[in-house]
Amino acid sequence: MKKFLISTLVLLFTGWSSATADNEDGSRLWLRLETTNAAKAIKGVKGTAMTELQTYWKGGSVELKKEKGIAGDGYTIKSNGGKIVISAACDAGLLYGAYHLLRLQQMEASTASLDISEKPAYDLRILNHWDNPNGTVERGFAGKSIFQYPDPARMKMYARACASVGINGSVLNNVNAKPEALTTDNLHQVRRIADMLRPYGIRVYLSINFASPIKVGGLDTADPIDADVVKWWKEKAKEIYGLIPDFGGFLVKANSEGEPGPQDFGRTHADGANMLANVLKPYKGIVMWRAFVYNPQSSDRANQAYEEFMPLDGQFADNVIIQIKNGPIDFQPREPYSPLFTALQKTPMMVEFQITQEYLGASNHLVYLAPMWKEFFDSVKPASLKAMAGVANIGDDVNWCGHHFAQSNWYAFGRLAWNPSLTSEQIADEWLRQTFTGEQKFVDPMKQVMLDSREACVNYMMPLGIHHIFAGGHHYGPEPWYAPKGLRADWTPPYYHKADSIGMGFDRTTNGSGNVKQYPESLCNTLNDIKTCPENVITWFHHVPWDYKMKSGRTFWNELCHKYNDGVIQARQFLTTWDGMQPYVDCQRFNEVQRRLRVQARDAEWWRSACLLYFQTFSKRPIPQDVEHPVHNLDEMMKFRIPITMYENPAQGYTK
Amino acid sequence: MKKFLISTLVLLFTGWSSATADNEDGSRLWLRLETTNAAKAIKGVKGTAMTELQTYWKGGSVELKKEKGIAGDGYTIKSNGGKIVISAACDAGLLYGAYHLLRLQQMEASTASLDISEKPAYDLRILNHWDNPNGTVERGFAGKSIFQYPDPARMKMYARACASVGINGSVLNNVNAKPEALTTDNLHQVRRIADMLRPYGIRVYLSINFASPIKVGGLDTADPIDADVVKWWKEKAKEIYGLIPDFGGFLVKANSEGEPGPQDFGRTHADGANMLANVLKPYKGIVMWRAFVYNPQSSDRANQAYEEFMPLDGQFADNVIIQIKNGPIDFQPREPYSPLFTALQKTPMMVEFQITQEYLGASNHLVYLAPMWKEFFDSVKPASLKAMAGVANIGDDVNWCGHHFAQSNWYAFGRLAWNPSLTSEQIADEWLRQTFTGEQKFVDPMKQVMLDSREACVNYMMPLGIHHIFAGGHHYGPEPWYAPKGLRADWTPPYYHKADSIGMGFDRTTNGSGNVKQYPESLCNTLNDIKTCPENVITWFHHVPWDYKMKSGRTFWNELCHKYNDGVIQARQFLTTWDGMQPYVDCQRFNEVQRRLRVQARDAEWWRSACLLYFQTFSKRPIPQDVEHPVHNLDEMMKFRIPITMYENPAQGYTK
Repeated sequence: MKKFLISTLVLLFTGWSSATADNEDGSRLWLRLETTNAAKAIKGVKGTAMTELQTYWKGGSVELKKEKGIAGDGYTIKSNGGKIVISAACDAGLLYGAYHLLRLQQMEASTASLDISEKPAYDLRILNHWDNPNGTVERGFAGKSIFQYPDPARMKMYARACASVGINGSVLNNVNAKPEALTTDNLHQVRRIADMLRPYGIRVYLSINFASPIKVGGLDTADPIDADVVKWWKEKAKEIYGLIPDFGGFLVKANSEGEPGPQDFGRTHADGANMLANVLKPYKGIVMWRAFVYNPQSSDRANQAYEEFMPLDGQFADNVIIQIKNGPIDFQPREPYSPLFTALQKTPMMVEFQITQEYLGASNHLVYLAPMWKEFFDSVKPASLKAMAGVANIGDDVNWCGHHFAQSNWYAFGRLAWNPSLTSEQIADEWLRQTFTGEQKFVDPMKQVMLDSREACVNYMMPLGIHHIFAGGHHYGPEPWYAPKGLRADWTPPYYHKADSIGMGFDRTTNGSGNVKQYPESLCNTLNDIKTCPENVITWFHHVPWDYKMKSGRTFWNELCHKYNDGVIQARQFLTTWDGMQPYVDCQRFNEVQRRLRVQARDAEWWRSACLLYFQTFSKRPIPQDVEHPVHNLDEMMKFRIPITMYENPAQGYTK
Repeated sequence: MKKFLISTLVLLFTGWSSATADNEDGSRLWLRLETTNAAKAIKGVKGTAMTELQTYWKGGSVELKKEKGIAGDGYTIKSNGGKIVISAACDAGLLYGAYHLLRLQQMEASTASLDISEKPAYDLRILNHWDNPNGTVERGFAGKSIFQYPDPARMKMYARACASVGINGSVLNNVNAKPEALTTDNLHQVRRIADMLRPYGIRVYLSINFASPIKVGGLDTADPIDADVVKWWKEKAKEIYGLIPDFGGFLVKANSEGEPGPQDFGRTHADGANMLANVLKPYKGIVMWRAFVYNPQSSDRANQAYEEFMPLDGQFADNVIIQIKNGPIDFQPREPYSPLFTALQKTPMMVEFQITQEYLGASNHLVYLAPMWKEFFDSVKPASLKAMAGVANIGDDVNWCGHHFAQSNWYAFGRLAWNPSLTSEQIADEWLRQTFTGEQKFVDPMKQVMLDSREACVNYMMPLGIHHIFAGGHHYGPEPWYAPKGLRADWTPPYYHKADSIGMGFDRTTNGSGNVKQYPESLCNTLNDIKTCPENVITWFHHVPWDYKMKSGRTFWNELCHKYNDGVIQARQFLTTWDGMQPYVDCQRFNEVQRRLRVQARDAEWWRSACLLYFQTFSKRPIPQDVEHPVHNLDEMMKFRIPITMYENPAQGYTK
């Protein structure tokens, strides 16, 4: 917008006294109508809260009250007979309180005498969208990016959904960030999105490419201590905040999987992160710096984040948060927690969960992830973290997430980021009642399906600590044999399962890669001894002999066969249970979920067949008689390919 | 959005009976809240009407009532005591009625006993934005394009302003159309804009490049009778309407000023327009085909539209409208009407007015254009036209139009497109009261300024039928001498004024270019005779001797000097009048308008000096003693350049 600078100059020279009326900039044209009193109040985030209540609340009058004593985004809801008062210190708190009240209405809970007091565990509850400028979404299984052509109605619904569970930040683009993210054109697009999300209390963030000063700015270097580089970032920050005054900050994947970073210029992660943090500081922006690093030379990928970041503990600026994936490898169906969480002492940390099911059946499998995230919090104290991030499972599919039940993971992420002490069951119950029906004959069995679903997925994919035996590229089906010549070893399954004639598993004990030593001493001792190591991660830490005696009394090989079998049976049972839900579900959603559960049951069989027949080539032992035997042929499965990219959901799995 | 086609197939094969509940697509996520009854009604254009009234109407209850008998977008407003009823056959009519009521409120008119019945003269009331993909606006004097980064709040205000005066269509891009207009990327942008304008009853249209099948589609030809070309257009139309079901249609500038067109392939305007019309017909889209054509070979540019289009009269499809500029040349301060308007008998026509002041002082001069458009309607019967288009003066400046008073032209265009029989005075009165104040001491003098302003501009720029003596490129200041070697003659002022030792003016009589013969016979005779030709267009039709005796008794030369002098005195008077308005206007707008009126007064002097001193080199006659004499030096003015493009407003004029 142009300003009339010359006018001001003329004024100075002629010494005009100011006119009597208030100043006007003319932007209202001839529509200088005064707003009625009733309409006046509806503005900003508080206005959103009012509108949501006016639109959807069917009970008596609700007062939205500002009250200073309430912390952060917290709120209270009190009712006494007809009148309900929602109090909060800030507008966002009022909005969250309004959604809480609407949730109670939707769940048919009584609101006659409420005395609720809520306060989020984390100030920052943020989605990471891995959306690319061309509209693809990395590991996106629900269509294309909602941000490429941001439709106002869709943006509004997205913002409502996020705010309804307390999510208050969105990183709009892929951590594998294209430099274009910071072009002026893109920043205008970001501004438009920010304007649409702001009324719902959601700030936008961007993933940045560390080499942007070169690729966007045309400089010779992106060295973080170079004066021109710092100047470029400062000017860029000024541009960003000129457009988006409440811009949240940057997410950075640096020196990881080929992305540029400070190490390219002989600097450390701290040098890089602190430079950016310093640039954003005047605007209260933050830097989320990812600890997801590994290189092909190291003997154990699981060790590397720790090795790179521990020496930097205490060196990061106070507006840097180190963003650490929940496990040390990469969002596997089951991983132990990343040892960095208990090791770093002087560094603000946040956990990165993956809501999109990159490694858990994409948008074909019903896998409710709250139990996996709760398992993480069993080991890592929520209070030791500053924030919680989730890699979104959202695309432009009509139903947002591809699988109707995948919506529950978006929901659960938000609820846990608000309150990690909620139980998986409680969240599933809330979600089912709001999304489908409160009918007990529906809620009870489907809640059980949800609660069992993650362990079932572990069983039919990777039980007993097995990890990363996925197909190359799309991470959907099994390819434990996948090891093309010349591919870096840590991108092939044999690197992880290490099956041989003796047994299988990655020796990470003190005799092996020593990874156990990254955990606190008592846990290290527990994990280091095969007798005390929890069996659900036993091949993560040990090379387990095929005849090793498990707690069940079975040999390890037989136990493995049983686990895969259990998974198949569970997956089939989910389908059977769902088929009984037809009376309670509309036709479209019933059929869409049914189709996917059928795929899931077939995929479970595919996993069982592929893994047992392949590992049997090492174990040379028979599959026990008390489990079902694989129905597919190993040689045919080994030739099978699903011709998809990492940006789409497969129609189904094995089709021979 | 993906559809679950496979799901449907599975259904067919398994013969599922439908479930009991209604179908749901899952797009509402867990937010399946039922809308309260009060909130339910607020949707679409009618919802906009309700919201506008709820937000701004301070009187008693207003009922919005659908009534079939009312034509088109018309409405009635009836009140009896407290209750007001707005009736219309369609939602848009209700919205226009709501704005009418709010206008009455704003003008402090009584609404106690209303019996209003309104019906628009034209179904199509449309703005043409000459906005380019890079954000520049051709002849845009108010900043950059509002559509490049369409901010929802700005879009909403734009839509409100348009709808408040009945505008119901927007061509979003320049008639000099880049092929990119039809890329999928751009169509998504257009869809977003369409979604934002739709609640205000505004349809979007696009200018298209006739060579799009080559430049976007990769074909070898854009020949309108080529089957592949037609197929390409049909597929493109399908794509457009898939995104924007109510897309309005195409505006086409073909074979004009270097733009491609059907003549490039040996076809006629009718061949080209009808092919596109046929493609759009299934979707009820229209083609607005411009008659603004001329080529450098012809001896009189004013003759050419007639020469090209008359042979095609009756050959155009019924969803084609020929869009004709008001005058035969190009939006000059004064032109006779284009003779096509009375000549074409079997062809639907629409007039194209220029709201942006390309030739009337840009956004520096206060020139109220309603009197110019009313002058057109004095000659061309409103009922002979199908629609009215206006080239917009809107940009991303805070005040939308650069000059606060330029807003009045946007307003007046919309009001006249609704009702061409409104008087200039009535529209000025309405606009002033709404935009500034109803204070009579303000409204009366400023209304007079507005009403006098166009004739003043004609006086100080181009009195007595003089035309197109503007500077090259930016069309802001005077350069009657501008004739660079090699430039096509019809792009230089001497082609138009033809000053020589005998006199000045373009002989378009039957002895000259014969242009008069394009008008109906009696008018032809009037214009053909210098004695009966109206003096305000005398040099348009005649080469007038310097000593020709005018009706005032003065010689033509002396009359010319007086006219220029009158213009200067009027411009100064506008400034003086405005300076007395300070008590009634807020400080910011007062100063911004004052600054521009000062520029205008200086520019009027520049025009007088440049034109009189230049034409004096031909007339060799003294400037009379009863007028002020030029204050600038001709040789210095001839060296002076304003270094701006055709996309910006000059800070001011002559600065020596």
